[in-house]
Amino acid sequence: MASLSRLFLLLFLFLVHLRRCTVDAVYIAYNTSAGIVEGKLNVHLVPHTHDDVGWLKTVDQYYVGSNNSIQGACVQNVLDSMVQALMEDKNRKFIYVEQAFFQRWWRQQSNAVKDLVRRFVKSGQLEFINGGMCMHDEATVHYIDMMDQTTLGHRFLKVEFEIVPKIGWQIDPFGHSAVQAYLLSAEVGFDALYFSRIDYQDLTKRKDTKTLEVIWRGSKSLSSSSDVFTGIFPKDYEPPPGDFYFEVDDTSPVVQDDPLLFDYNVQERVNDFVAAAVSQANITRSNHIMFTMGTDFRYQYAKSWFRQLDKFIHYVNLDGRVNTFYSTPSIYTKAKHASNESWPLKTDDFFPYADGLNRYWTGYFTSRPALKGYIRVLSGYYLAARQLELLTSSRNKKGPTTDSLGDALALTQHHDAVTGTEKQHVANDYAKRLAIGYTEAERLVGKSLSYLAESAFGSGLSNTSTKFEQCLLINVTYCPSSELHLSSGKRLVVLVYNSLGWNREDVIRIPVASELVLVQDHEGTEIESQIIPIANASLDLRRTYVKAYTGNSPSMEPKFWLAFSVSVPPFGFSTYFITPTKEKGSKAIISDSYVPQENGISTIREVGSGNLRLKFDTEKGISYHYSNRRTSVNSSIEQSYLYYKGFDGSKTDTQSSGAYVFRPNGTVSVAPEIKTPLAVYKGPILDEVHFKITPWIQQIVRAYKKKEHVEVEYIVGPIPIDDKVGKEVVTQFSTFMETNKTFYTDSNGRDFIKRIRDFRSDWELKVHEPVAGNYYPLNLGMFIKDKSTELSLLVDRAIGGSSILDGQVELMLHRRLLHDDGKGVDESLNETVCVNDKCDGLIVQGKFYLNVDPLGEGARWRRTTGQEIYSPLLLAFSEEEIGTKWTGKHITTLSLTGNSYKLPDNVALITLQSLEDGSVLLRLAHLYEVGEDKNLSVMANVNLKKLFKGNKIRGIKETSLTANQGRDEMEKNRLKWRIEGSDGLEGPVRGRPVDSSELVVELAPMEIRTFLLLFDSVSYDF
Amino acid sequence: MASLSRLFLLLFLFLVHLRRCTVDAVYIAYNTSAGIVEGKLNVHLVPHTHDDVGWLKTVDQYYVGSNNSIQGACVQNVLDSMVQALMEDKNRKFIYVEQAFFQRWWRQQSNAVKDLVRRFVKSGQLEFINGGMCMHDEATVHYIDMMDQTTLGHRFLKVEFEIVPKIGWQIDPFGHSAVQAYLLSAEVGFDALYFSRIDYQDLTKRKDTKTLEVIWRGSKSLSSSSDVFTGIFPKDYEPPPGDFYFEVDDTSPVVQDDPLLFDYNVQERVNDFVAAAVSQANITRSNHIMFTMGTDFRYQYAKSWFRQLDKFIHYVNLDGRVNTFYSTPSIYTKAKHASNESWPLKTDDFFPYADGLNRYWTGYFTSRPALKGYIRVLSGYYLAARQLELLTSSRNKKGPTTDSLGDALALTQHHDAVTGTEKQHVANDYAKRLAIGYTEAERLVGKSLSYLAESAFGSGLSNTSTKFEQCLLINVTYCPSSELHLSSGKRLVVLVYNSLGWNREDVIRIPVASELVLVQDHEGTEIESQIIPIANASLDLRRTYVKAYTGNSPSMEPKFWLAFSVSVPPFGFSTYFITPTKEKGSKAIISDSYVPQENGISTIREVGSGNLRLKFDTEKGISYHYSNRRTSVNSSIEQSYLYYKGFDGSKTDTQSSGAYVFRPNGTVSVAPEIKTPLAVYKGPILDEVHFKITPWIQQIVRAYKKKEHVEVEYIVGPIPIDDKVGKEVVTQFSTFMETNKTFYTDSNGRDFIKRIRDFRSDWELKVHEPVAGNYYPLNLGMFIKDKSTELSLLVDRAIGGSSILDGQVELMLHRRLLHDDGKGVDESLNETVCVNDKCDGLIVQGKFYLNVDPLGEGARWRRTTGQEIYSPLLLAFSEEEIGTKWTGKHITTLSLTGNSYKLPDNVALITLQSLEDGSVLLRLAHLYEVGEDKNLSVMANVNLKKLFKGNKIRGIKETSLTANQGRDEMEKNRLKWRIEGSDGLEGPVRGRPVDSSELVVELAPMEIRTFLLLFDSVSYDF
Repeated sequence: MASLSRLFLLLFLFLVHLRRCTVDAVYIAYNTSAGIVEGKLNVHLVPHTHDDVGWLKTVDQYYVGSNNSIQGACVQNVLDSMVQALMEDKNRKFIYVEQAFFQRWWRQQSNAVKDLVRRFVKSGQLEFINGGMCMHDEATVHYIDMMDQTTLGHRFLKVEFEIVPKIGWQIDPFGHSAVQAYLLSAEVGFDALYFSRIDYQDLTKRKDTKTLEVIWRGSKSLSSSSDVFTGIFPKDYEPPPGDFYFEVDDTSPVVQDDPLLFDYNVQERVNDFVAAAVSQANITRSNHIMFTMGTDFRYQYAKSWFRQLDKFIHYVNLDGRVNTFYSTPSIYTKAKHASNESWPLKTDDFFPYADGLNRYWTGYFTSRPALKGYIRVLSGYYLAARQLELLTSSRNKKGPTTDSLGDALALTQHHDAVTGTEKQHVANDYAKRLAIGYTEAERLVGKSLSYLAESAFGSGLSNTSTKFEQCLLINVTYCPSSELHLSSGKRLVVLVYNSLGWNREDVIRIPVASELVLVQDHEGTEIESQIIPIANASLDLRRTYVKAYTGNSPSMEPKFWLAFSVSVPPFGFSTYFITPTKEKGSKAIISDSYVPQENGISTIREVGSGNLRLKFDTEKGISYHYSNRRTSVNSSIEQSYLYYKGFDGSKTDTQSSGAYVFRPNGTVSVAPEIKTPLAVYKGPILDEVHFKITPWIQQIVRAYKKKEHVEVEYIVGPIPIDDKVGKEVVTQFSTFMETNKTFYTDSNGRDFIKRIRDFRSDWELKVHEPVAGNYYPLNLGMFIKDKSTELSLLVDRAIGGSSILDGQVELMLHRRLLHDDGKGVDESLNETVCVNDKCDGLIVQGKFYLNVDPLGEGARWRRTTGQEIYSPLLLAFSEEEIGTKWTGKHITTLSLTGNSYKLPDNVALITLQSLEDGSVLLRLAHLYEVGEDKNLSVMANVNLKKLFKGNKIRGIKETSLTANQGRDEMEKNRLKWRIEGSDGLEGPVRGRPVDSSELVVELAPMEIRTFLLLFDSVSYDF
Repeated sequence: MASLSRLFLLLFLFLVHLRRCTVDAVYIAYNTSAGIVEGKLNVHLVPHTHDDVGWLKTVDQYYVGSNNSIQGACVQNVLDSMVQALMEDKNRKFIYVEQAFFQRWWRQQSNAVKDLVRRFVKSGQLEFINGGMCMHDEATVHYIDMMDQTTLGHRFLKVEFEIVPKIGWQIDPFGHSAVQAYLLSAEVGFDALYFSRIDYQDLTKRKDTKTLEVIWRGSKSLSSSSDVFTGIFPKDYEPPPGDFYFEVDDTSPVVQDDPLLFDYNVQERVNDFVAAAVSQANITRSNHIMFTMGTDFRYQYAKSWFRQLDKFIHYVNLDGRVNTFYSTPSIYTKAKHASNESWPLKTDDFFPYADGLNRYWTGYFTSRPALKGYIRVLSGYYLAARQLELLTSSRNKKGPTTDSLGDALALTQHHDAVTGTEKQHVANDYAKRLAIGYTEAERLVGKSLSYLAESAFGSGLSNTSTKFEQCLLINVTYCPSSELHLSSGKRLVVLVYNSLGWNREDVIRIPVASELVLVQDHEGTEIESQIIPIANASLDLRRTYVKAYTGNSPSMEPKFWLAFSVSVPPFGFSTYFITPTKEKGSKAIISDSYVPQENGISTIREVGSGNLRLKFDTEKGISYHYSNRRTSVNSSIEQSYLYYKGFDGSKTDTQSSGAYVFRPNGTVSVAPEIKTPLAVYKGPILDEVHFKITPWIQQIVRAYKKKEHVEVEYIVGPIPIDDKVGKEVVTQFSTFMETNKTFYTDSNGRDFIKRIRDFRSDWELKVHEPVAGNYYPLNLGMFIKDKSTELSLLVDRAIGGSSILDGQVELMLHRRLLHDDGKGVDESLNETVCVNDKCDGLIVQGKFYLNVDPLGEGARWRRTTGQEIYSPLLLAFSEEEIGTKWTGKHITTLSLTGNSYKLPDNVALITLQSLEDGSVLLRLAHLYEVGEDKNLSVMANVNLKKLFKGNKIRGIKETSLTANQGRDEMEKNRLKWRIEGSDGLEGPVRGRPVDSSELVVELAPMEIRTFLLLFDSVSYDF
């Protein structure tokens, strides 16, 4: 029995110790350690994801992965699974771009994960690329917004990771701007800029001539000092042709290398890879090519990609025909630089973008004009609010900040946000974020102004007693503060803040309920004012849009605009008082009205009481003669409104006009033959002419006594669609100027670029879309010129514009389209506004500004006025019982500079912001290009001591544009590239380093200089 | 200057040490540690994936994630990401089921990952459930195949992880068998069995009566000793209603709990969860419910589920209304057991399955009959081959093994494999695997037989000189060995192996080219043989199918079948010699032929030269009188062929007949009125009657002299579809028996279950499909009985059958359908066979066996014949020059038992297999149910010493059915459950433990006992 027991024991041991080899092991340790091999074709594999911060879903929906029925996308998955994938193999690399997403993720992570990610960043496994909050658009964004949103991301990366992104990565935006190249790349310290979307004809030529990689010189003024190496992808930002997509559920063949399973395919897949590499190498200089391994919202389960990439690296390198390895755009750029190739020089920009014969992506220059306007208004407001936040040292105290407005503005610079190419619900989400951000900033501004006004009387920031209100909806004639107070026996206090560095003379207009008012300046002196009836079109707009925006209908309606001139010191305010009177005062002038007869036309045809005179020819649509008594410029201008019928896609040609694409199908003039009724209001401050072109197009032309330009306010919409035809509304100005196909449009509100109709400097253009193919984005404006004059148009938001005929300019003001244009958004651009469930097409109200100057004198107007448009005077309203002594408790005027200093005419302060660490971010911008103005295109000086009125600057450090590295360090690290046919020209003149005792900043034309300052006291001292 | 330097230093420090709080942290440490809370409703969250080992894609495609255009599914992702998810939180749990996938993955893993997984298994984070290679079907599989495939998986788990799965998890199969319950659950040692698919009417009633959870007693014979707790899911095996799907890109709302993001929804989602829990609790006994959190191929990125489940556990438990936690079916089962509830008793099975009024899943009982036949043929072959593998100790030597055949057979038991419900390309993949497996096993068998035949002459396994060939295609009259040799002047050696435990007398038939032959037995004695012309139908089939299978057309064609009787000892072989002769020998009888006249009918109407006599009434279709001289049974039987027209889905009712669903749309008799021409061949061994019912339905009826049953070989196909109507072909046998709606069908070839037409014992059946709703799966066969006789039909593969009228039985032989039935496969079941690019509908050839016995005597025939059908004699062919002395180098007969012992008539050896560790797996099965046969339904004894002819058994251990644990241990751990209305009956009698010195195994009716044996010598000794 004993032996039997032993036998059983043996049997058990057998069972327990059965060899663990019932299945053959096929574990393969992939060799992913490869790097660059000299003499071979090196294929840089760059694993990446492209995560729109809103498009078909909102940014938060994309982040958490909700609303997947619209689009399966969850950025949280990407980042979570990336961590695991990088942990599994130290050779794996990943780049991440959009900081709005990364920050959402980062703040949710445990310290353990954070430490891990810091290690990845340090080792280079994870590299942050681009590094702004979003991948901003390049056509419809203002350079200040581009800077701000990039800075927000870059500073986060600096603070959290002590790193500085080195690569620009604008892979998806629909065209590429000069400002992006020189300002947001070179001036940020990027070693290179990469993107994919360029004109299809351009692409073909570049592939044929191996000129996909260039040195881009985006600035005429800064020239070679702001060159940047630029790589254009040969196809798109996706993997190369040949089935290399490896998202979960993707259909590309995976590398099946388990010999025990069916369908072993290693050699086939290696062949596919080598073929793709050779094909790309054939159109690329040097023996380095980049495979962008990823696309929109991919790597939701990162390992599903890395598993395949591991195998490709392993087997392709075993094969040996080409060499491949995990890389990043930085590594690729360094390899390109080390190759010592010469690269072609590229100037100007990459607009417009077309991806096919009839596919010009020039519609989005105007798409969602109201959202574009909202963003621009808040951009200027944000600049002003940050000044006040600094001036009142609000930044690190409890209470409202500008942060959420900054975040919202950053998001909306995204290339599917301000562009108008997102779904409607996403556009709503952006608007909501802006509204939330504004609401908080508005509280900050109100509080700050109270504090500044009361500061001399001992108030602290937390115990101010004055309540200032602001009127965001004053653009639709809604300002409860000004409307109500004047009817309640109190007097209205209007505090006017000027965020520009110059003393400012301007006219403000506020809606009032009564014409019986008296206006006093900050010293109590009564000043001249003018009462103007509010146009019916404006009141109509007010009724609908106030209800739509606030949910309520105001109980009363103002009847008049009260206009008066104000004077405000730089970075400061002045206070005005409006008091109801029993009788009409002598200085409150009621406008002379000239309203049209029944079916007739006003007989008054001339307006303008200053240098500007406008004479209307009422027989010919909107035809007027412009004259300026000071400059003796005369010009006959015929204005008209037209619309393009949006192509609606046919069976044979499915490309519709839509949110992205402008594809006109014929032009229709809006009532061109009909005599336009006009009403005229004249007075001491300004004259207004009211036009009703159609029931859905109205405009008011204003001529201010003290201004030399024409201000045009248009109200366009609801665009009728009863005829089932989408429409894109433009206004044209025709003159007799001989412009020889040439016009000038701005780049992101900064440099002007010469455009020649039906022409591209980089290739011989085949013209298929004579209108859409000549459209360019405007942020500041455009101009044309002939031998004697310049005609300039400035805009109040991003819109598209062109010059389709010599002597003519046109602006696209509004679009309403009934078909999707097939670029993924899958909605037609048909914006509506709903009140009580009744929806009607969106009405857009906006302004543009027209001026005609003697040749050579336009720049000064454009630059100065441009600043004023961007930074309008900020109005804050308060009330007090009549008879109360405001001045007993308030300062009525104040300036950062103490009124003793103003910025030179050619310089603007574009950022003044207190950072979370107590330092102050300052940016100064020269406003003129080289040669733009004979007096102002020169080196400028700013005296910081005077600017800050003796508040002692304890430290100053000049930095890169995004304030994440020292300027000197950045310049030291800048890569020098060899340019084809050039021996390295002398760089342009730039401002010298700032002497820290003198504290004078030199600015060369177009130069922007960024500084971090430390002040003596934590609180800014007046 | 010094102080200025210090200032700069300060500034730098500021930059470096900026506080890392630019974003508010919202890291949440979810509390996932919850377990059962007494007194609360406990919601067991069971994260799981359901991974078909082939369905729309092949098993390997599913594993690696290729062919994703058909279905996005990659099991590798599931397992990879599961590891990460479990690593992140030790409270997370996951179950994994299908070992075919797990093994593919396991062998690719590094040791580090393997160690990790072992830790998860040990800690219970990862639990293996079910544990077979696949989740086998339960209708169309043979119990031996079920056992084998489960054993394969279970032993792997035992060897690799030292674990024993405790839970049956048949969540997807389309109906559930009694054998699954008692044999593959209780006898395997499972604590419970869970599944989801049951009849929709049954489900409704069970929800209403809280009887979704029952004690299932699947075996009348084993009774309470094989009860198993069985849980039926209230909906399906997916998450509960209410949007709880969290695969990447799923559209259920994720729990958004970041207050800094929009759309915070924690309370809504908690409410959804609580509502789902309460709803399920209302139909469930005890305060434990299970949420099956997953479904087909989910958890490709496991974290996307776990992230949400973490949150639900955290927030639902904070909410407090219900309690939820990570669980497994084991934990759930233990909780159920601990609840001390009483449970209803369920007997019989859950067939047929319908998921709606006209949706009876009874078509798949027959779908792909050729694949079903192939699998069954190889199942029997695998049993025999494993015996030879053991007998020759081939298992751990170089050279062929049965492993790949075992793997292939295991895979094909999957519920979308043998069922015929996979896509065609997947069916092809299964067939390919079977062919590969067979090819290797065939080499092993050939080699083993050579070795056994030569072993007495000093040959080793590796140096045998005899080459044996086998004829897999003999079913289509193709056997090159027998055809060629007889024409080449050599003689043919036929080695006949018997894998049954009894001495076997049978008739073998081989195709030969000439009638001039002489047959000798193993002693050289000439024996009687019979020459039968090969039917034209068989030759037609041969021409097409040999070409289709082998790619070649054989150059010559055999003309005759040579039939002769053989006698083979248990587990052994006998050798026969066939020698060409110049003249017709006296013992090689050429059949008497009676072929029909032109347009006429043979006059011969009676066949059968033994006890069985068949008299055909040629005026009435296929009508014959059966009589047995021994038993004096007489029966008039009318056979007919008919087809059901497959419902093709209409606009109002889209349910078509298809791969799964049988939905007839009327019955059509096949030429019932036409006098069927028949040809008759008679001889000393057997008589054959050839019927040509239609050009596409032919059958041969055989009456063997020494057998008492009718053998029917049918050739059905190509089923015509010119009329655009799918057809499901049945044959019916009508008698005058009074069967009172009652018939009996087997459960997986084992127990017979009583069926009553239009009746279910568990609920009051509403009959909507009087035919399809009465179909049951057959693996062994079916019978009907009246007061005096039993009519039995045995089948050679899984098919569907029924008794739609009293006295009638029918078998569905073939199906060809033109519409998909909407269950996901998205193909119509329209099998074709292609030769030279010409494709025609599949022809199916098969056999069934008919017998009529006196009441009470049918079981013996069914059980014995059933074994013979499952394990046909294995034929191996060799050749030698005439005159060579075969016997000089070969043994001509041999038996494992040394011819001195045979198994009792009521016992079969169903497994004899050498394992990879040197032990031997033995299974013995009692073949009779309690009360089935008056003599044989008794305790049986098997003497192992005699069985193994004195080869010393050094150790024996009785185990669970799948040999992964000791039987005693299993019984000790078996949970005892309270049954409603029962006080715990005495268990049935079972065989006593085996005394290790006596080595006699007792077997009670229906008992299967499994042993691991250790023999003295490594090589089995003869």
